[in-house]
Amino acid sequence: MPELRRDPIVGRWVIIATERAQRPSEFPHVPASSRPQGLCPFCGGQEDKTPREVYAAGRPPGAPSNGPGWRVRVVPNKYPALKIEGELDRQAEGIYDRMNGIGAHEVVIETPDHSRTLENQSQSEITEVLLAFKARILDLRNDQRFRYIVVFKNHGSSAGASLEHAHSQLIALPIVPMQVLAELNGARHHFELKERCIYCDIVGQERKDRSRLVHENDDFVVLEPWAPRSPFETWIVPRRHESSFEAEPRERLSSCAQALGTAIRRLSTALGNPPFNFMVHTNPLRDAPSPSYHWHIEIMPALTQVAGFEWGSGFHINPVPPEEAAEFLRRVAG
Amino acid sequence: MPELRRDPIVGRWVIIATERAQRPSEFPHVPASSRPQGLCPFCGGQEDKTPREVYAAGRPPGAPSNGPGWRVRVVPNKYPALKIEGELDRQAEGIYDRMNGIGAHEVVIETPDHSRTLENQSQSEITEVLLAFKARILDLRNDQRFRYIVVFKNHGSSAGASLEHAHSQLIALPIVPMQVLAELNGARHHFELKERCIYCDIVGQERKDRSRLVHENDDFVVLEPWAPRSPFETWIVPRRHESSFEAEPRERLSSCAQALGTAIRRLSTALGNPPFNFMVHTNPLRDAPSPSYHWHIEIMPALTQVAGFEWGSGFHINPVPPEEAAEFLRRVAG
Repeated sequence: MPELRRDPIVGRWVIIATERAQRPSEFPHVPASSRPQGLCPFCGGQEDKTPREVYAAGRPPGAPSNGPGWRVRVVPNKYPALKIEGELDRQAEGIYDRMNGIGAHEVVIETPDHSRTLENQSQSEITEVLLAFKARILDLRNDQRFRYIVVFKNHGSSAGASLEHAHSQLIALPIVPMQVLAELNGARHHFELKERCIYCDIVGQERKDRSRLVHENDDFVVLEPWAPRSPFETWIVPRRHESSFEAEPRERLSSCAQALGTAIRRLSTALGNPPFNFMVHTNPLRDAPSPSYHWHIEIMPALTQVAGFEWGSGFHINPVPPEEAAEFLRRVAG
Repeated sequence: MPELRRDPIVGRWVIIATERAQRPSEFPHVPASSRPQGLCPFCGGQEDKTPREVYAAGRPPGAPSNGPGWRVRVVPNKYPALKIEGELDRQAEGIYDRMNGIGAHEVVIETPDHSRTLENQSQSEITEVLLAFKARILDLRNDQRFRYIVVFKNHGSSAGASLEHAHSQLIALPIVPMQVLAELNGARHHFELKERCIYCDIVGQERKDRSRLVHENDDFVVLEPWAPRSPFETWIVPRRHESSFEAEPRERLSSCAQALGTAIRRLSTALGNPPFNFMVHTNPLRDAPSPSYHWHIEIMPALTQVAGFEWGSGFHINPVPPEEAAEFLRRVAG
């Protein structure tokens, strides 16, 4: 019998279509790294092919910026979706609202080595990527024009990556994205009723139940959410309450890197290097620490065709129950 | 300068990235009808290859059901996402909610002729398809378990269609989809402030402004919305206020067929038979006629890769301003 499940945070119902259930091998996807490419501007030694860096880690002391020797490097996006210069300007056009497209759009080059990916990087390498996210957020949040920073990764061309070399992106926005607002509101509503954080409740129930738990370490759980929008949707959630990603100290980001690495390796082994996206969900910039919101990472493998009506209606059909996905991911090497 | 624009109904901001603007010919998409197929179960004469029909139009009087001679035919989906039998049963699982997957999932076969599509069908043929939607909604709304019927079409395999033969689908649900709820709430909020329907306001402003208007007839406008999530997103909106699709009489559905046909033909000419989705947005079943909500159709060409983070964050980047899309669509034959 198929089942309707409600996401406890935003209230979205999804259909878990158990009788259409597919084995992981049945998803007809293109493995993520299949696009042949010429000279790569993100490789070590090609630093002059990108805009000038805004952050780099790993160079020996005294080494010049925009040269080789880095381990993680952040540069402005060459084709930014938003412009960094200018004052925010809100205008009406009849009944409509517009704002000029002020924002930052940066690329986090995760390694100088074209053959390295999250899947084969060490915990300390992934930690450096997370520290780069944190450093950029701490810098950009001083800019009072920005309200939110979307940190995300598109892996594989069918998940939207235009370059193969391992990278993630961040977009600083003068607004809070709609889905994040829905999470903030849903979590606040739960807190008003129960005086508890709903994500803490989820972590508690999942650690007890274990059927959707993939992995845990001292600081993080890796789980398949109760009402996943797509097969093998995977969340990485801090065990200890914390509303903002950028408030986490290095040690906990190192734990997060362990959890993220094992999640990606398990998904890759189970599904054959699938294209995927992840996004860091965190409290809006400069908001006071929130007792109701809890930062986390959502990983979404791009396995099924997202029909336009699904993101137009907010109504999703998922052929893989999260308990089956979790069992599968627990079994493979991570 | 890129621009942020806010959807006036649900409050979603999108980036209109004007400097990345692409010409329609630059979208690297796979034309919709490219998948070779064997025997088609939706063709006239193959009626025994589908579940037994729940609706048919066009057969001569006295002709047996489930035989040839029909012009539009509706059958249960052979692989339904939801089951029609059973009582609704809501259960808690700790902090989570589930419901058994009761619902209906039907396929509207739009023509017996494999070579016909919306693009080359006459106004009267498309009218019969819309009348089939209406007849099925009127029948299914008697079932008190259902709260909403999603009527939609996936055209082209990369938009999620698994069969090439022209068809649309309807899914009757015991819940209202999240995005529809957001529209209902946004429209209600506008009505509380202004005592006007926001969609009526949009029709008024767009007919006056004309920069986003593609086409209009006596009863409908075809327009590019102010804050489109993807290039060439196109809406078909009744000029006269009406909250429910199924309340429209045959004459107005015939006008709607004219508007839908010209919209699809223009999109097809402009973009080279692109894959697309459309969905009928309408008031929940059995709700009283609403002064604030206004039914309409949203067409979404599947041109750009929807990265998982876009539907995960609710944050979209659109490289084509709707004014440019509208100008292009006005110029091509429709």
